[in-house]
Amino acid sequence: MKKQVCIIGGGPAGLLLGHLLTQEGVDCVVLERRTGDYVLGRIRAGVLEQVTVDLMKRLGLDERMKAEGLPHDGFNLADGERLIRIDIKELTGKEVMVYGQTELTRDLMEASAGRGLEVIYGAEDVELHDIDGANPHVTFTKDGSPRRVNCRFIAGCDGFHGPSRQAIPASVGKDFERVYPFGWLGILADVPPCNHELIYANHERGFALASMRSNTRSRYYIDVPLTEKIEDWSDERIWDELAIRLGPEAAAHITRGPSIEKSIAPLRSYVYAPMRHGSLLLCGDSAHIVPPTGAKGLNLAASDVYYAAEALSAFFGKNDADGIAAYSDKALARVWKSERFSWSLTRLMHRFPEDGDFERAMQVAELDYIASSRAAQTSIAENYVGLPV
Amino acid sequence: MKKQVCIIGGGPAGLLLGHLLTQEGVDCVVLERRTGDYVLGRIRAGVLEQVTVDLMKRLGLDERMKAEGLPHDGFNLADGERLIRIDIKELTGKEVMVYGQTELTRDLMEASAGRGLEVIYGAEDVELHDIDGANPHVTFTKDGSPRRVNCRFIAGCDGFHGPSRQAIPASVGKDFERVYPFGWLGILADVPPCNHELIYANHERGFALASMRSNTRSRYYIDVPLTEKIEDWSDERIWDELAIRLGPEAAAHITRGPSIEKSIAPLRSYVYAPMRHGSLLLCGDSAHIVPPTGAKGLNLAASDVYYAAEALSAFFGKNDADGIAAYSDKALARVWKSERFSWSLTRLMHRFPEDGDFERAMQVAELDYIASSRAAQTSIAENYVGLPV
Repeated sequence: MKKQVCIIGGGPAGLLLGHLLTQEGVDCVVLERRTGDYVLGRIRAGVLEQVTVDLMKRLGLDERMKAEGLPHDGFNLADGERLIRIDIKELTGKEVMVYGQTELTRDLMEASAGRGLEVIYGAEDVELHDIDGANPHVTFTKDGSPRRVNCRFIAGCDGFHGPSRQAIPASVGKDFERVYPFGWLGILADVPPCNHELIYANHERGFALASMRSNTRSRYYIDVPLTEKIEDWSDERIWDELAIRLGPEAAAHITRGPSIEKSIAPLRSYVYAPMRHGSLLLCGDSAHIVPPTGAKGLNLAASDVYYAAEALSAFFGKNDADGIAAYSDKALARVWKSERFSWSLTRLMHRFPEDGDFERAMQVAELDYIASSRAAQTSIAENYVGLPV
Repeated sequence: MKKQVCIIGGGPAGLLLGHLLTQEGVDCVVLERRTGDYVLGRIRAGVLEQVTVDLMKRLGLDERMKAEGLPHDGFNLADGERLIRIDIKELTGKEVMVYGQTELTRDLMEASAGRGLEVIYGAEDVELHDIDGANPHVTFTKDGSPRRVNCRFIAGCDGFHGPSRQAIPASVGKDFERVYPFGWLGILADVPPCNHELIYANHERGFALASMRSNTRSRYYIDVPLTEKIEDWSDERIWDELAIRLGPEAAAHITRGPSIEKSIAPLRSYVYAPMRHGSLLLCGDSAHIVPPTGAKGLNLAASDVYYAAEALSAFFGKNDADGIAAYSDKALARVWKSERFSWSLTRLMHRFPEDGDFERAMQVAELDYIASSRAAQTSIAENYVGLPV
């Protein structure tokens, strides 16, 4: 098979890029190792920045998002009994959209066939070849048969564990990493949320987040040591812990219900640089991971895809390679700022085993300062809604 | 001797409090262990917030400050070749005053006799007694003779190592501390400053600060491991290091000259809470230490003194004890925010031995973000000029 761009990975980043390139007349294919149902089964974040919403709008795929998504104009930081509201709309003029990553992926997936975007599911043993030069190719097996895509560029949208980043020679790049000493235990349940906006809580017993996917589906998290086993956390135990950590006001409005999903996910900050090597462009989790605090993961993938789509369209449409040359620097500038925000919000809202009384006092002082300062609130709000692309 | 208030410590905090109380008709005495010359010989910071300037103005002791001080409407953060200017005047409407702590202390000292503020120098072996009750007293020796002050309140303005905080029973309070893994090597020289505004630099070789006391007297710092000895740092070696760390632009304007003073000071964050026990009120360094980054030390002492003077004047003038009861909470609210700012600016501008590539990248990302965000600059600026009292 011959294509201008071979996209590896059929999650939201790969599908979004595929649709944007298809819209610009760039011939591409998406290879996904799993089935479509498996991809849709992955539970991920659900707060979209304007940049992500705008890309869906540009594709004309925002109908369901507009109908079912929940625009939010604020969120809350809690600290025991205190609730600090960050009025993002008033402070920045922008808002965010609560719409599950699963739903966005479904919208992209369902539109593929009609728009002529070829997505090959069950593409196993994907390997990248000759990425240094101008004629790379990708091999994979499908239903046991070997297949090959010849292309001009490869877009690695295959996540942290995918083959794309690993195809770059070890001498080329550098990785930056921080692993956190706890994980997030998440529970998804078909109950109304306890609050119409998100609440991030730093309680003396630990972190908690009250979030939602819709007005009838709630997503909650607490942080736990990485040694905890999900089997030891009954639904009741999770609800009990949430009721303590989120504070009395939120607790009074929690509706409990059976979990549809629960799991413990580790937290990591990770950046690989550069984000391009030869004919390979990395987008999203294949190049960087943020801890989920602040919900930047999908949005950062979306801004990578925005830059990549611009660069690839200019290359094929106007024979202009400048965007390709600038891709890594441009994407990384925004990546680093989002990494900073996710890291600092994680620092602010979690208890770290290595922290002493002074560091704990600094968290309280920072929350006190945020509560009292419009400038500090604006700084948080502008990062939360997403810095400009 | 019988006084309403006995102030322990004749540095700027003690003298400022003494003058404010005298102005309000509160009868007080200041006990200082050292001589006046010794007190004036201590080299300290020299950037005054509005709150400190206003107190000198209220006392009518701001003549020389107005004539010789340098109002600054901005300062700079440097990162290699980059210089990020924080336009504090434009961002906050306020400015700071560059005027050495030594000069301010001299102004207060010289006005004491004329205003009837008794200051006893050479007051040795100071001890506090019966601070739990309403009739405390202070004993000391002067020229070998035992002396005693009976009073209603004691103000502990005697610094980190003074006897006041140590007179509080161990079970009463709690201390919060962070010691930093480096010290500041400072050099004072009678040469014009390299820049008309302060420059805080985070260079790959370490931290540097270009500061000044006047248009003809410069104060520079670099951070060094605590194991360094000042004897190993010739003036030339310090100038050479400053020229590298401050970046090419500043380096081109450095005027070198012989040091009038040089020393290495450790950096510490420290808070003792509560700041009042019984009849003892702690002010300034006796209750808290900040690292010098951001120049909050003297200003924080000034805001403590402001609250203490208000509380004591109300007690003696209006028989109102509410201010005394509220003193610790009121002072600590501002202390914690200044501690937070000093700590976070220290974190941002120094290399820490425990930091890896990721943490270093976070510093760069934060500087990039600050350079691009008015909200982030406003947040820094409002802390730099001083949060409201």
